Amino acid sequence: MNKVIFDTDPGVDDAMALLFLHRHPKIDLIGVTTVFGNASIELTTRNAQFLHREWGIAAPIAKGAGHAYDPARNGDHSAAVVHGEDGLGNIGVPLEIDLPLDPRDAATFIVETVKANPGEVTLVAVGRMTNLALALKADPEIAGLVKQVVVMGGAFDVNGNVTPAAEANIFGDPEAADIVFTAPWKVVLFGLDVTMQTLMSADFMAAMAKGGDKGLRLLSDLSQFYIDFYRQRVGLDGMAVHDSCACVYVVAPELFEYRSGPVRVVCGGIADGKTIQAPDSGRKYEGSAWDGQPSQLVAVGVQPQKVLELIRDTLVTTPSAG
Amino acid sequence: MNKVIFDTDPGVDDAMALLFLHRHPKIDLIGVTTVFGNASIELTTRNAQFLHREWGIAAPIAKGAGHAYDPARNGDHSAAVVHGEDGLGNIGVPLEIDLPLDPRDAATFIVETVKANPGEVTLVAVGRMTNLALALKADPEIAGLVKQVVVMGGAFDVNGNVTPAAEANIFGDPEAADIVFTAPWKVVLFGLDVTMQTLMSADFMAAMAKGGDKGLRLLSDLSQFYIDFYRQRVGLDGMAVHDSCACVYVVAPELFEYRSGPVRVVCGGIADGKTIQAPDSGRKYEGSAWDGQPSQLVAVGVQPQKVLELIRDTLVTTPSAG
Ligand SMILES: [Ca+2]
Ligand SMILES: [Ca+2]
Repeated sequence: MNKVIFDTDPGVDDAMALLFLHRHPKIDLIGVTTVFGNASIELTTRNAQFLHREWGIAAPIAKGAGHAYDPARNGDHSAAVVHGEDGLGNIGVPLEIDLPLDPRDAATFIVETVKANPGEVTLVAVGRMTNLALALKADPEIAGLVKQVVVMGGAFDVNGNVTPAAEANIFGDPEAADIVFTAPWKVVLFGLDVTMQTLMSADFMAAMAKGGDKGLRLLSDLSQFYIDFYRQRVGLDGMAVHDSCACVYVVAPELFEYRSGPVRVVCGGIADGKTIQAPDSGRKYEGSAWDGQPSQLVAVGVQPQKVLELIRDTLVTTPSAG
Repeated sequence: MNKVIFDTDPGVDDAMALLFLHRHPKIDLIGVTTVFGNASIELTTRNAQFLHREWGIAAPIAKGAGHAYDPARNGDHSAAVVHGEDGLGNIGVPLEIDLPLDPRDAATFIVETVKANPGEVTLVAVGRMTNLALALKADPEIAGLVKQVVVMGGAFDVNGNVTPAAEANIFGDPEAADIVFTAPWKVVLFGLDVTMQTLMSADFMAAMAKGGDKGLRLLSDLSQFYIDFYRQRVGLDGMAVHDSCACVYVVAPELFEYRSGPVRVVCGGIADGKTIQAPDSGRKYEGSAWDGQPSQLVAVGVQPQKVLELIRDTLVTTPSAG
């Protein structure tokens, strides 16, 4: 069983990823930590509460960071045009959800849960890396106790989606991302290189919702705004299932190809938030910022159809009683 | 006939490119300007004089910049490990060559020659962009009078060769490169994306030299150090003919594929000297540093065998009497 803490900023594609983690039989979702990003920390936390209630998810929710790691950053990049004003496709989520939060903040929750389950916890982080960087700062020892860190973020050999250089999760907190990627733990990154190839069409979503339960129909409803964004603004039929790619990896790593090497994040300047890997198999450089940093895995290939089918087969499963 | 000013830092692959420009029947080499880079400005200028003398090239040589555009830059990146201590493969070039230089500096030579041949001059720049930036500064009007600017430089969807982020010609003077790529003239860029695919094997070089004249055998001799570098340090059999790619474009643009869009250069930080294009056909960004900049062409595909054959067929031609 894969014990997972899901660090998330729901967010439409976060919602699909959350339902995947909840419904996959080989995943034990032991906690959800929220972070600002697709919407404010108040909204993303409220959205996590809403989805937990609607989908009957028992895992505790710990509220996380509301701004970037570096206090000099203004982290106010609204993604309302992508995810809706409420972060969940403007479906009319109630202003407040009566579901208690864990009393700890996200970083503390991560530290304590990792230490209580040494070597067993996979951190799946699909928002800004802020909570993970704060957890490392609070207790660097966790780097040796986490099983692995699975990230949706970055744009390596392709353009970004916020600027030509940077992808949104990294652009929103470059300093935190650089801390997380250079820490001595295993990081596996799913950036736009693979997630923009993993597009779920409107028809695929509709057919999936038809074969599913009420919970899956909610996912379909809240995804329509996001699908419209992709059609109108990106010119694609369907939505990139960014965050679900990272979750699929936990149970089906064979559906992706990887490149190994240190990863750094550009902080500041016109390429602010750009992710760059120095592949282990490539040319050797002397005196660069990648020297001596731990090698991480970057996904550079994907079998999109198989990823989509695994998501569908997992989501249409009748939820277990647990 | 294509009137070409060749801006160069010879440099082994510069030497091949120079001989190509000299011997191709559809190219009229009307000037050579030197720049620091593969070696100091004294050495690259001396090397240009040496190659002119050996190959009987009549075009004037104008000495150019010895340091980067921004005086705060320390441009002292020795490339002796790649091109030899003398910049020409340690073949024993005499310390001084008795061949007069043009009295003008490179930037002045470029400005005056472009204005004397409005709309007709192709600038082929295969070193740091310093001279071109200085020419633009001296007289911005030349941007509208140049036919096109053809550049060897950059690493777009691939890693650099000095750092994981940056290619040598751009790394050596990022501010100058950003000025040149954002000026209102047509720029076509040949970066590592295509030049590292265009490898001339030791055998190909040997066969070519065997079928050629004394001038071609000199090129083969001075290239051996560079070929050894590629074998021992990069792990490739053969040398990338970086600078010749830009020259081949002048007469055979159909051998490459291109992507259109503004190009910016990262100045400072860990990605110093990285080139990033925002493709015209891609996602639209708001408020990025690429907004409103002119679209340039970046070569993203190449037919390497055809490029090599065109170089060979041009170099083995008996030089014309002119
Ligand atoms: Ca997310
Ligand atoms: Ca050169």
